[in-house]
Amino acid sequence: MREPLSDAVDNPGLVPVQRLRFDGDAPARSDTDAVIAETAIALLYNGQPHAVMMATPADLDDFALGFALGEGVVGHASEFSLVDTVHHADGIALHGAIPQARFDALDARRRGLAGRSGCGLCGVESIETAMWPPPVVGATARFVRRDVATALDLLAARQPLNDVSGGVHAAGFFDPGAGTLVVREDVGRHNALDKLAGALARAGTDPSTGVLLITSRASYEMVHKAATCGIGLLVAISAPTDLAIRTADAAGLTLAAFARGEALNVYSHPHRLTG
Amino acid sequence: MREPLSDAVDNPGLVPVQRLRFDGDAPARSDTDAVIAETAIALLYNGQPHAVMMATPADLDDFALGFALGEGVVGHASEFSLVDTVHHADGIALHGAIPQARFDALDARRRGLAGRSGCGLCGVESIETAMWPPPVVGATARFVRRDVATALDLLAARQPLNDVSGGVHAAGFFDPGAGTLVVREDVGRHNALDKLAGALARAGTDPSTGVLLITSRASYEMVHKAATCGIGLLVAISAPTDLAIRTADAAGLTLAAFARGEALNVYSHPHRLTG
Repeated sequence: MREPLSDAVDNPGLVPVQRLRFDGDAPARSDTDAVIAETAIALLYNGQPHAVMMATPADLDDFALGFALGEGVVGHASEFSLVDTVHHADGIALHGAIPQARFDALDARRRGLAGRSGCGLCGVESIETAMWPPPVVGATARFVRRDVATALDLLAARQPLNDVSGGVHAAGFFDPGAGTLVVREDVGRHNALDKLAGALARAGTDPSTGVLLITSRASYEMVHKAATCGIGLLVAISAPTDLAIRTADAAGLTLAAFARGEALNVYSHPHRLTG
Repeated sequence: MREPLSDAVDNPGLVPVQRLRFDGDAPARSDTDAVIAETAIALLYNGQPHAVMMATPADLDDFALGFALGEGVVGHASEFSLVDTVHHADGIALHGAIPQARFDALDARRRGLAGRSGCGLCGVESIETAMWPPPVVGATARFVRRDVATALDLLAARQPLNDVSGGVHAAGFFDPGAGTLVVREDVGRHNALDKLAGALARAGTDPSTGVLLITSRASYEMVHKAATCGIGLLVAISAPTDLAIRTADAAGLTLAAFARGEALNVYSHPHRLTG
């Protein structure tokens, strides 16, 4: 269900555009609609460029912290601070400060990835650098299946950017004890998860106490980020990949997918789901 | 509609997995299902690692060439050859050979991105390196709207990996003159487009003569890759982003989105669509 444009004003995640609407044999109609904002976001640590992500420019404080946590740049929120947010013509630069030891480790990882060599093993090295093993999840909380269905209903009603523009991903964290849901949206599914992880860390919420819901598929990177943040139960609305399942299995994470209403499939460590 | 598992045997894009199926109050049922394969694919040029993509390990010849074309690593298919495909435990390395001048240009781009500096402009430099301007599309072909609807119908019936596993993206190229559709699928939407571009180049098909259809959203990178390959009309089934629209506008590419049946929205250069 797409909401009218009037709701979209003043939201940094939405941009009004002109479009020509064709429908069947009716004459083309020109009107204004809102689309999701996509911006190049450069992430820098201690002045060193690390990555450029295409993301929706909202909740950038959450994004900066959550990306650093989910990518293993830092191990705890206290190690990261966003020292500057600079808007340029072509994008936004988020300047983070991290401890020197973390910076050195990141630099070594980067040099490993960029290392030049003519040997046939290069492919292996770059694959291994890209696929660092996720930590094993220690979360002990158990969850009732009906709570997952409740959380999915709540999530469906809490996606304002998607309601207006369509095609936006959401990540939600449901706390069954409190019955509360924290949601972040982004044009990219990884970014939505990063933003959510950052929001939880900034609020001091322990991710192991709740359920992570994603409106997208469960791919390798989504499972990896979830495990890195200490999530015990990841529920995807769409399909899982084989590598996501193997990664969840290795990380001790419970992976459920194709979650619709009261139905879902569990692909790894089903012990966290009861009832 | 998900097809039975029996159709999936022997397809490198599908992997059988065990799952626990929960549905309402019925007892959990354990069975075997097929999920989409996701593998780390390292892309190397002249022995130098360039990138690692998470992709579905099918149509790798198409992927290797299409990625090199779509990312501007080479300007023409004749400049690229896939010299080796090496299967490792954790992924697959695709070893490509490119002319020395292209390799030097790529190396300069890479060094620019990794360049270390303490100045506040780093963010701008890395954004500009990530966002190189797409070429202006010279395609002069015009397309009848009804042909787009026909192409969408054909595409819906030509996604065997998605039919079995769900959550798979497809990119299709429709030639209105011949009434033919070439389709590639992948767990990643960029990869599906790269594979399609590679397939067209290998077949000697001129991309400017047809319509590019994608089952996903139209983001910046999808428009950028399409323009780089010389596509004149890009039709997305899902939503566009604001940056995708601005990029299409600058590249002279016709961007349509929310294409369903006889309806679609046009966001840039509508002159290529008639009827």
